[in-house]
Amino acid sequence: MAERTWNVYLSGEIHSDWREQIEQGTQEAGLPVSFSAPVTDHAASDDAGVGTLGEESEPFWRDHIGAGVNAIRTQTLIRDADIVVVRFGDKYRQWNAAFDAGYAAALDKPIVTLHDGDLDHALKEVDRAAQATARTAGQVVDVLRYVIEGKLP
Amino acid sequence: MAERTWNVYLSGEIHSDWREQIEQGTQEAGLPVSFSAPVTDHAASDDAGVGTLGEESEPFWRDHIGAGVNAIRTQTLIRDADIVVVRFGDKYRQWNAAFDAGYAAALDKPIVTLHDGDLDHALKEVDRAAQATARTAGQVVDVLRYVIEGKLP
Amino acid sequence: MAERTWNVYLSGEIHSDWREQIEQGTQEAGLPVSFSAPVTDHAASDDAGVGTLGEESEPFWRDHIGAGVNAIRTQTLIRDADIVVVRFGDKYRQWNAAFDAGYAAALDKPIVTLHDGDLDHALKEVDRAAQATARTAGQVVDVLRYVIEGKLP
Amino acid sequence: MAERTWNVYLSGEIHSDWREQIEQGTQEAGLPVSFSAPVTDHAASDDAGVGTLGEESEPFWRDHIGAGVNAIRTQTLIRDADIVVVRFGDKYRQWNAAFDAGYAAALDKPIVTLHDGDLDHALKEVDRAAQATARTAGQVVDVLRYVIEGKLP
Amino acid sequence: MAERTWNVYLSGEIHSDWREQIEQGTQEAGLPVSFSAPVTDHAASDDAGVGTLGEESEPFWRDHIGAGVNAIRTQTLIRDADIVVVRFGDKYRQWNAAFDAGYAAALDKPIVTLHDGDLDHALKEVDRAAQATARTAGQVVDVLRYVIEGKLP
Amino acid sequence: MAERTWNVYLSGEIHSDWREQIEQGTQEAGLPVSFSAPVTDHAASDDAGVGTLGEESEPFWRDHIGAGVNAIRTQTLIRDADIVVVRFGDKYRQWNAAFDAGYAAALDKPIVTLHDGDLDHALKEVDRAAQATARTAGQVVDVLRYVIEGKLP
Amino acid sequence: MAERTWNVYLSGEIHSDWREQIEQGTQEAGLPVSFSAPVTDHAASDDAGVGTLGEESEPFWRDHIGAGVNAIRTQTLIRDADIVVVRFGDKYRQWNAAFDAGYAAALDKPIVTLHDGDLDHALKEVDRAAQATARTAGQVVDVLRYVIEGKLP
Amino acid sequence: MAERTWNVYLSGEIHSDWREQIEQGTQEAGLPVSFSAPVTDHAASDDAGVGTLGEESEPFWRDHIGAGVNAIRTQTLIRDADIVVVRFGDKYRQWNAAFDAGYAAALDKPIVTLHDGDLDHALKEVDRAAQATARTAGQVVDVLRYVIEGKLP
Repeated sequence: MAERTWNVYLSGEIHSDWREQIEQGTQEAGLPVSFSAPVTDHAASDDAGVGTLGEESEPFWRDHIGAGVNAIRTQTLIRDADIVVVRFGDKYRQWNAAFDAGYAAALDKPIVTLHDGDLDHALKEVDRAAQATARTAGQVVDVLRYVIEGKLP
Repeated sequence: MAERTWNVYLSGEIHSDWREQIEQGTQEAGLPVSFSAPVTDHAASDDAGVGTLGEESEPFWRDHIGAGVNAIRTQTLIRDADIVVVRFGDKYRQWNAAFDAGYAAALDKPIVTLHDGDLDHALKEVDRAAQATARTAGQVVDVLRYVIEGKLP
Repeated sequence: MAERTWNVYLSGEIHSDWREQIEQGTQEAGLPVSFSAPVTDHAASDDAGVGTLGEESEPFWRDHIGAGVNAIRTQTLIRDADIVVVRFGDKYRQWNAAFDAGYAAALDKPIVTLHDGDLDHALKEVDRAAQATARTAGQVVDVLRYVIEGKLP
Repeated sequence: MAERTWNVYLSGEIHSDWREQIEQGTQEAGLPVSFSAPVTDHAASDDAGVGTLGEESEPFWRDHIGAGVNAIRTQTLIRDADIVVVRFGDKYRQWNAAFDAGYAAALDKPIVTLHDGDLDHALKEVDRAAQATARTAGQVVDVLRYVIEGKLP
Repeated sequence: MAERTWNVYLSGEIHSDWREQIEQGTQEAGLPVSFSAPVTDHAASDDAGVGTLGEESEPFWRDHIGAGVNAIRTQTLIRDADIVVVRFGDKYRQWNAAFDAGYAAALDKPIVTLHDGDLDHALKEVDRAAQATARTAGQVVDVLRYVIEGKLP
Repeated sequence: MAERTWNVYLSGEIHSDWREQIEQGTQEAGLPVSFSAPVTDHAASDDAGVGTLGEESEPFWRDHIGAGVNAIRTQTLIRDADIVVVRFGDKYRQWNAAFDAGYAAALDKPIVTLHDGDLDHALKEVDRAAQATARTAGQVVDVLRYVIEGKLP
Repeated sequence: MAERTWNVYLSGEIHSDWREQIEQGTQEAGLPVSFSAPVTDHAASDDAGVGTLGEESEPFWRDHIGAGVNAIRTQTLIRDADIVVVRFGDKYRQWNAAFDAGYAAALDKPIVTLHDGDLDHALKEVDRAAQATARTAGQVVDVLRYVIEGKLP
Repeated sequence: MAERTWNVYLSGEIHSDWREQIEQGTQEAGLPVSFSAPVTDHAASDDAGVGTLGEESEPFWRDHIGAGVNAIRTQTLIRDADIVVVRFGDKYRQWNAAFDAGYAAALDKPIVTLHDGDLDHALKEVDRAAQATARTAGQVVDVLRYVIEGKLP
């Protein structure tokens, strides 16, 4: 099989280093993957609207403008992705991660969820729509290696 | 305009009576709406898999089977819906509600979110993908009346 | 051919009686047509958001909320339509009518434009995307009669 | 994230230098953007049909032929675009810009509108379908920088 | 199987009574079929544009206007059809019949072609895109009976 | 929820009475289901082509013509279905059942597979694409009751 | 605008040198166009099936096999095309050209037809679905130059 | 025609060297083809789930996890393919091959089946959905050469 670059979108939790772990593992494995993600600088993300389109004092609209600007990025990259990995951590509500999963599912994108077992029951609908549920970043790398090269660790 | 029945799917919170409020308000307003929803009997929903397809002792798979059976219902009804209302309450993580919203958004279904202001920041991405954000069931009824009959309260 | 009800969406100008003329002409011709339209009560339409979802003092957001609620109606009905008629008059900018035409065109809906000859040059792109350009409401009725019954006036 | 070239279509007003401002700002920011646009030479655009396919004396058909040829370009490039920026100025009716916006919206393309505040009310439906509304070309550049690189100005 | 009405579009030749034969045979067989077709009154069809939208002296544009009006009917009905039957006779070029076949094929509509053997070579691409090639109207009725009721003659 | 008729397509094995069991169970449960299926009269199905379109002596083409006529039925009914049930038995290769499952999966139809455990390994890809795997016709009825009425047995 | 290669599919007549004229004119104009076409070697095209898949004596099936192999090429290239040019000459019935036009139209591909005026009436439906109708290969080149570079001859 | 790389997915039998034969023949013919395939290492494929995502003792779930991981690869590559070749051998049930064929058919991918004549009757539905049925790997190469270069052997 001629080399093909796989686009993998990394959605969800932005307060831990799971993206770096996956990227590093993938790089060490020499896999032809191009990663994309939402903006993971929390402060920048919250200011995405007012920082680009001008001030807005009302919190609801401040968020609304920011979410619009962020959506230009996220929805474009999800549409471009071959695989969408969605990470749920134990902090925050992360409804946007679940939203991304639903969005990806309706677009027939293969989904890999990444979370601990204590979230299993709460995430059962999302996991059911996924092709794989991983517990560690390393497992995601293993899945990517198998999917791309057909090799097990 | 000849009468048209509008299909409205009511996604999300199952521990309060918001669906009944919307249905009653809509009925009192005489609106031609056909409502649908996920199974809202929590116990039945959790047993959707093992109660129909046979026992399964492993919790992850028990949820997996159940989520599959529930998805037959929910994804079919969302695809049939003209409008998807998504309710977020202050309990539980309700990732399935956010998943439904993402799923509906990718299918170009108009979304109405329903939640209190203290969830605004956490729901900003979902609200941005919605055509309307309501605070009360009565407001949802008002939106439906306007959308269907062009009349304000 | 067994009787089929044709859904016709009437987009555009809300300050003249062109919709009534088409509906009356169609009724007199006994055509099986079900018409739909945006809310044509200008004041109600402008208040569609604040009248249903609560007060908003900032004009931009007031319009934004209203446009969201109106879009639930208009985009649903355009998606349901077999034919979209778009009327342009000599007042107002009517960008929403042109937006509807573009939206309908991308959904492969047959479009009939209705406007005077002095708007021809300004509307050339919209007319090109249409299957017919009419000058009078009566011509639209004639087109509908032909399309549905195969009869010329 | 590996470098990705973003296709941005610049629709609307052709009598001011807003496209050049955005292109220059984007270049200065070093963003990987490939711009496309309708033909902005007004005279050439009006003669697109008769200048290529032969003379036509009737103004309506002259416009019709030209609009067909222009549509080959514009609809292809909008379909290829990741983001569609739509500029409305204070001159001309610019129905084709609103048409492009509706066309892009139905194709699920993220839209950025660019116009002054005095057009807000007239453009409320178009702005509602957009992910962002900018007032200056510089703001569009800021949105692009954030969307592509996640950086605020 | 609960009764289902099948929509069958009859495209092509308008100078013989093949449509009547199929409709009569289907009626005698008691099949739940709803037929649709282009306007088969040749004179009316040729005047579809000028007879509804006003005079036009230039033959090319006269045809153009008429074809637009006819397309509102034909493309709507083909989109609604479950099955498209396309008849080719030995007269006229019938490029519109072949166009309809291509249009139906791209929409994944099952096609049944109906023509004599001496047209086989010229119609090989169209026949290949069809699910069945019939020689007589009676065979089309037999196919419909089998498809709907599972019964052979 | 207003009553909605669910279209259920029953694909696969034609040499046992599993369809009758499901239909009877569904009827006893009073569920609003409309079933459809391929032609289950094996002899008629094999003669679908030559019995309608005329004799053909070459076995490959005899099958080819028949498969074309059968596909008009099966692909139309699968496209119309809300749910596709696919039954695999221990006889015959039933590649058409697996083909139907793949076809339904790509169209985003919820799939329920029905087969014994000894086929599990051979059917793992098909089962993975399904929302539920049942062992008995009764379980399929239970799934339908839950999906439609939200009730467990 | 960064350079973009335009894919142009040249469908229709294979007995004259119109393709070469367009390719040469495009090359002289320095346009970034990648052309594709059906196999234009008539003998090879007729033998596409039996020359690759083995002998078949029955003419209908001989054509059927060949048309299948040719369709792999033509439908793939049409789906890849930005623009589809369809040429009709005065010989042969060229139903495959009209089929291609219908196929391209349903896929929302811009179509340019190329034929003499004496075929206008017979091709009115195809021309109506096209964005441009040219009389000479040179005009097609002029359209391509304008579409790609915005320049008139 | 500028050189275009054709993506060809090779689905089905993994216990013979048909893929190597096709790849070698294509290479010798100098055809611009990029092949892809499922993981053909049977042991690795069976362990795709437990080898990447962790142990699972229950055979049904072991297969389920593995099939999910494999589907990420297969469904992505089928969606990317221009042509899908499906090989059926005389061993194993190969329901996944038939599933792939149905999946590809619903996505409008051209299919080439490859199998011996004794499987014709069992594969009639799959062959009918294919554009070509080959008996040898060499014939598949001949089809690819013709499709890509228009040359017969």
